[in-house]
Amino acid sequence: METTKYLLAEDHLPKNWYNVAADLPVPLAPSLHPATGQPIGPADLAPLFPMSLIEQEVSTERYIPIPQEVLEVYQLWRPSPLIRARRLEKALGTPARIYYKYEGVSPVGSHKANTAVPQAFYNKAAGVKRLTTETGAGQWGSALSMSSAFFGLECKVFMVKVSYLQKPYRRGLMESFGGTVVASPSTETACGRAVLAEHPDSPGSLGIAISEAVEIAAQSADTKYALGSVLNHVLLHQTVIGLETLEQMQMANDYPDVVIACTGGGSNFAGLAFPFIGQKLRGEANVRVIAVEPSACPSLTKGPFAYDFGDTGHLTPLVKMNTLGSTFVPAGIHAGGLRYHGMAPMVSHLLNLKQMEAVAVNQLETFAAGITFTRAEGILPAPEANHAIAVAIREALRCKEEGVSQSILFNLSGHGNFDLQAYMDYQMGKLHDYEYPAEEIAMALAGLPSVKDF
Amino acid sequence: METTKYLLAEDHLPKNWYNVAADLPVPLAPSLHPATGQPIGPADLAPLFPMSLIEQEVSTERYIPIPQEVLEVYQLWRPSPLIRARRLEKALGTPARIYYKYEGVSPVGSHKANTAVPQAFYNKAAGVKRLTTETGAGQWGSALSMSSAFFGLECKVFMVKVSYLQKPYRRGLMESFGGTVVASPSTETACGRAVLAEHPDSPGSLGIAISEAVEIAAQSADTKYALGSVLNHVLLHQTVIGLETLEQMQMANDYPDVVIACTGGGSNFAGLAFPFIGQKLRGEANVRVIAVEPSACPSLTKGPFAYDFGDTGHLTPLVKMNTLGSTFVPAGIHAGGLRYHGMAPMVSHLLNLKQMEAVAVNQLETFAAGITFTRAEGILPAPEANHAIAVAIREALRCKEEGVSQSILFNLSGHGNFDLQAYMDYQMGKLHDYEYPAEEIAMALAGLPSVKDF
Repeated sequence: METTKYLLAEDHLPKNWYNVAADLPVPLAPSLHPATGQPIGPADLAPLFPMSLIEQEVSTERYIPIPQEVLEVYQLWRPSPLIRARRLEKALGTPARIYYKYEGVSPVGSHKANTAVPQAFYNKAAGVKRLTTETGAGQWGSALSMSSAFFGLECKVFMVKVSYLQKPYRRGLMESFGGTVVASPSTETACGRAVLAEHPDSPGSLGIAISEAVEIAAQSADTKYALGSVLNHVLLHQTVIGLETLEQMQMANDYPDVVIACTGGGSNFAGLAFPFIGQKLRGEANVRVIAVEPSACPSLTKGPFAYDFGDTGHLTPLVKMNTLGSTFVPAGIHAGGLRYHGMAPMVSHLLNLKQMEAVAVNQLETFAAGITFTRAEGILPAPEANHAIAVAIREALRCKEEGVSQSILFNLSGHGNFDLQAYMDYQMGKLHDYEYPAEEIAMALAGLPSVKDF
Repeated sequence: METTKYLLAEDHLPKNWYNVAADLPVPLAPSLHPATGQPIGPADLAPLFPMSLIEQEVSTERYIPIPQEVLEVYQLWRPSPLIRARRLEKALGTPARIYYKYEGVSPVGSHKANTAVPQAFYNKAAGVKRLTTETGAGQWGSALSMSSAFFGLECKVFMVKVSYLQKPYRRGLMESFGGTVVASPSTETACGRAVLAEHPDSPGSLGIAISEAVEIAAQSADTKYALGSVLNHVLLHQTVIGLETLEQMQMANDYPDVVIACTGGGSNFAGLAFPFIGQKLRGEANVRVIAVEPSACPSLTKGPFAYDFGDTGHLTPLVKMNTLGSTFVPAGIHAGGLRYHGMAPMVSHLLNLKQMEAVAVNQLETFAAGITFTRAEGILPAPEANHAIAVAIREALRCKEEGVSQSILFNLSGHGNFDLQAYMDYQMGKLHDYEYPAEEIAMALAGLPSVKDF
C-alpha cells in the first residue's frame, strides 16, 4: 500500500527553532520608535514583552533552543503529520505530487499554538500575571487562552468585531479555557473609543484590536502583550512546522518544487517556508516559495515596502514592511486571520530580496478550493488555509497542462470547524468577491509616516 | 523527557477487525422478524444492507480482514494517538496513570468514520447508489457524508430535530461533503408524519430517525440503509481503536486496570473495549471495563435485557438488548449521540455475562469533567466523551483516596468543536440535570413486544 501519512516519532520533535535572520544576506531594517523615529532598543519593548522574547526578536543565532517546558506541551500534538494528498491528486487528474503539512491537529485547531505556548511560558517565567492580545478569526485567541490556562496566566482577548459576530463559538472556546473575550473596537480603551466615535459601526480590524491590547498591557507592570504573528520571535516559534517537514519530506524521499502558504501577518507562512528559504539562502537547495494573500487585503502584492505602524492607534513601533496603510480596514472576508494591513517585516524583507513570490486570490476561488479539498481529503480547511489550497490547485493544474510531475507542498494551517457559517453562506451563494479597494488603500497609504529609511 | 504520546507508524494499522463473537462463552440471542417473531436469516436483511455486511453481522470468525480500499482511507488519520494525560493527572493530584485514545483526529472529529468508511465501501462494491441514515449529534451523519463523497454515493441523513436545532454547523459540515440533511421527525416518511401528528413539537430521537431512514431505504433497490452503532458489524469496524491501543499500551509498557468509554448505541465503547474483553474471555488478561451512560437515558443501568425494536416505528428486527422501550424519547441532553432507547445487543449480552460494568452519570458532572479536561489537556471533548472523562476522573480520585497507582484508559471518542453552544450554556448556568424519567420509561417498557425468548 502506498504511504499517505508521514508521522515522526515524539522524540523527533525539533529541539531548536530555526532563525532565518542568521542566513540573511542583508539584515532586516531596524524598528523605529513611534515618537522619535529612531531605532529602538530592547528597553523600549520591555513594557510589552519579557526580555527573553525581546532577545529572540533581535537574535541572529541560527538555532534557538526550545525550552523543556515548551516541548512537553508541544508533545500533546506535535510532530504534526505530513500527508500526501493522493485523493486530491486523483480528483484533479494531475501528475503532481501534492503534500500538506497539517497543523489542525493542535487542540485549538491551528498552528497558532506553536507560538502561544512559548509566549505563555516565557511570560510566566518572567513573573507576568496577565496577557492581553488581539484575535481575528479567533484562532490566535484560542491558542493563547489555552496556553495561558496551561501556565496559570489570565488572558484577555480583543476579538475583531466582525469575527466576534461571525464566530461566536470561537469565543465559547476561549471562555472554556478561562479566557476573557471583548469585541473590538471596544469602549474599554481610548483607542477603541476613538474608533467608535468616528465609526460606530466599525467591523474592527486586527490593527485596531492590537492597539487596544497594547494600550491595556502598557498600563500595568504585571500585564504583558502577546502578538500572534508579524514579529520575528513569533515567526521563529512557528519554524517547528518547516523543520519537521524537512525530515518528513526525506521520509517521503522527495523534496518540494513549490512551497505554498497563506499570509495574513505571515506566521504560518514563515513556519513552513523559512527552513526551506534558509536552505536556499545557504545554497543547499532550490525551491519556489509562494505566499498567498486575499485580494481584499493585498499587502504583499499591492502595498509598498515602507515604514508603517503595526497598529491603527499608532502605539507600536514603526516597522519596515509591505503595508496598505495602518488605517486601512479590510472588507469583512471570512478569512479573518488574513485581514491585516501589514505583513511580517521578515516576510516583506524576503520578498524584497526576491527569495519568494506572492499572489492574491479572491474569496470565491478559495472556498471552491476548500470544498474540492474537503470532498477529496475529508478535512474541512479554515478559510485562511483555503488560500494556500487554491494556489496549490492552480500549480497542480499547471503541472497537468505542462505534463510535468512536480512536488507541491502547502501548509494546511488549520481546520474550519469553527467556520461552518462561512461554508454554509458560500454554498447558498451568499459570499462574493471583492473589488480591489484602490481608493481606500490610496487614502490609507497617504497617511504613511515620513521617517528616515534605515 | 517523559513520553506523552504513543504514535504507531502507518504500517501498524490493524489489517483485521476483531470479532468478539468468536470468544463468547454463550452465543448472542438471534434477531427476530418484526412480523413473525421468528429468527431472521440473511435474506430478511438484504433490502437494507449489502450481503457483505450481513455476513459480518453473523460471523463468528475471530478476525475479519479490512479491505485494502478501506485501509487506504483509514490512513488519512489512523493509527490514532494514545495520549498519557500527564497534565490531567497533575491537576487531579492522582497517583493513577491516565491514558486516552483520541479518535477526534479523524477528519469529521470522531470515531464514527471507522465504520462509515467500510460501510460506504461495501455498499459501493454491491452497486448501491444511495445511502440513508439517521444521526443524533451529527457525528455519524458527518462521517457517512464524508465516506459517501469518497466512494461516490449519494447520502441522505435524518437528523434528530433537537440536534438539528442545537448544532446547525454539523448540518453545514454534512452539506460541505455533499450530503442532504433533513430534520427528523420529517414529513417525508409515514413514520415521521405519524409522530408529528401525535406530537407536532417532538424533539425527535434516534429511534424515530432510524425508522425514517429505514423506510426510505426499503422503498428502492439501489438505496440501502447505514446504521452508525448498535449492530455487530458496526461494532466490529470500531475495534481498530482497541487493537491499536493494545499495541500502544505495550509501547507504554503498561496495561489498563480500568477501561472506560461512553455508551449510546455502544460503538465507541465496543471499539475500545472489545479487544480487551476478548483477552479477558480468552483468559489472557484481567481488566475492569466500564460503560458510562447518561442518567437521562439509562438503558444499561435501568433497562431490562429483553427483546425490543431498534426503532420507534417498529420497522427493524427485534433484538435482545438492554432497553428503555422503543417509544421512550429521552430528554434533550447535549450528548445527542447517547439519546438512544436501546443498546447494542453485543454490549448488553456482555453486561449480562458480567464481563463489564455500567454506570450512569448526570449532565452537569460530565460538563464539569469536560472543562477540567480541556484546561489540562487542551482538547475540548464532545459532550458524549465527557461521560467517559467523568468516570475516569472518579476512578483517578478513587486511586488518590486509596493511594494506589492504577492505570486508567478511556476513549476520547470525539472533539467538541461543534458543541460550543452546549459549553457556553453550561458556563452561563443554563444546563441542568435530569430526574430519572421513571414514569416515561415505565410507560415505554409496558409496550415491550411479547415474543419467545430465544
